[in-house]
Amino acid sequence: MKVEIWSDVVCPWCYVGKRRFEQALSRFEHAEGVEVVWRAFELDPNSSSHPEGTEVGPDDYAQRLSTKYGAGLERGREMVSQMTATAATEGIDMRFDRAVKANTVDAHQVIHLALERGGAQLQGAVKERLLRAYFTEGEAVGDRAVLQRLAVEAGLDAEDVSAVLAEGRYVDAVRADEAEASALGITGVPFFVLDRKYGVSGAQSADVLLSALTQAWAERAPQLVMTGSAAGPADGKGADGGACGPDGCAV
Amino acid sequence: MKVEIWSDVVCPWCYVGKRRFEQALSRFEHAEGVEVVWRAFELDPNSSSHPEGTEVGPDDYAQRLSTKYGAGLERGREMVSQMTATAATEGIDMRFDRAVKANTVDAHQVIHLALERGGAQLQGAVKERLLRAYFTEGEAVGDRAVLQRLAVEAGLDAEDVSAVLAEGRYVDAVRADEAEASALGITGVPFFVLDRKYGVSGAQSADVLLSALTQAWAERAPQLVMTGSAAGPADGKGADGGACGPDGCAV
Repeated sequence: MKVEIWSDVVCPWCYVGKRRFEQALSRFEHAEGVEVVWRAFELDPNSSSHPEGTEVGPDDYAQRLSTKYGAGLERGREMVSQMTATAATEGIDMRFDRAVKANTVDAHQVIHLALERGGAQLQGAVKERLLRAYFTEGEAVGDRAVLQRLAVEAGLDAEDVSAVLAEGRYVDAVRADEAEASALGITGVPFFVLDRKYGVSGAQSADVLLSALTQAWAERAPQLVMTGSAAGPADGKGADGGACGPDGCAV
Repeated sequence: MKVEIWSDVVCPWCYVGKRRFEQALSRFEHAEGVEVVWRAFELDPNSSSHPEGTEVGPDDYAQRLSTKYGAGLERGREMVSQMTATAATEGIDMRFDRAVKANTVDAHQVIHLALERGGAQLQGAVKERLLRAYFTEGEAVGDRAVLQRLAVEAGLDAEDVSAVLAEGRYVDAVRADEAEASALGITGVPFFVLDRKYGVSGAQSADVLLSALTQAWAERAPQLVMTGSAAGPADGKGADGGACGPDGCAV
């Protein structure tokens, strides 16, 4: 069974949702049969990126929130502290006081590269590394040198990463993920898609995610609706299409 | 919409089915929205391969058929001539009198490589080149040097092809296609799978294939069943999962 998770690296609910999903998976009896793929969703494709070494004031994030929502700084601080508390219940140390503004298109390119190079496992490691870097460590994940260093820590090759970023090799793939999200009606993240059949919107609890896994698993058996073999066109030509199998061809 | 076609390079009905599908597609008004991907299915994974230059007698294929079916040579010849006639109605010049026995695992590796390197278009070109080589031109498509030459003609890079074959880089991918076929209940080819929802078995007529395309297209809109958002667990925790979107995060 394939679970695709649309997510952004700078999205706090995505990090929380990742932990809840991991909990659900750890309780799921068919976990070994689940493949998790991370899909790109940029919350703000027009965001600028601050470079490594940018000084961050303790209230900068709260200030950004208050501007975004047209509320006072106090409300911004409140949101930060609520999100921090929620994250803490999932064992995540969210340090908004360190967070460095980042455009995430390059981070998503690196996450795509990881899938290509090392499959779901390497991709998961890179995704986790980047979330931790942004939310806990105050790393500038929009800075290419930083991204490269983090990607290497997670298991990618340094030259491979820099070539990808220099070429913009996966920009189209990132845009394709986003177009697909839009086609699926996804407007916010995290968003979990199970076998392209079930959708779970938001960082639902591990219980909810587990029940979605269970339900999707029960229906995972490929159930193709056969068409065309029963009735053919009036002239009968090709009504029963020829086929070849291990025992030969129907002629 | 994605159409996956399980097929083998040495499968006469697959070649006929390819033409019928192409006709269906040429009459389908949303053809530009259809992506065709070729999947591997070896009719005989244990088949040996004859090298380039192998002399083929005009009755060799008929003889192989008669052995396979435990019938006389006459019946083998009859099958060959029926298949040849059917292929001719689709504009295919099937020359069984030239066909060189081939194991197709390497051909399928090259077809996988083509998808990776140049997407559906290059893959389609390589698939067509190999079918024509085997069925019309008497090429030894199980011979690596021959495969390489044909792949290059279709647009692949010579060194790329030889590296893939030397490493067996896509053998696992070929096996994965076959495992998937088995999971989908596919026992003979060609087999058309439309958006993993509809299945068409055999080289059905263009009319039948067109109606399958039309039906699958009408239902192509991604219809995710949303789960988990209505009712949460008893404690209410995470019943309504938080999410972030372009306008911010629900906190």
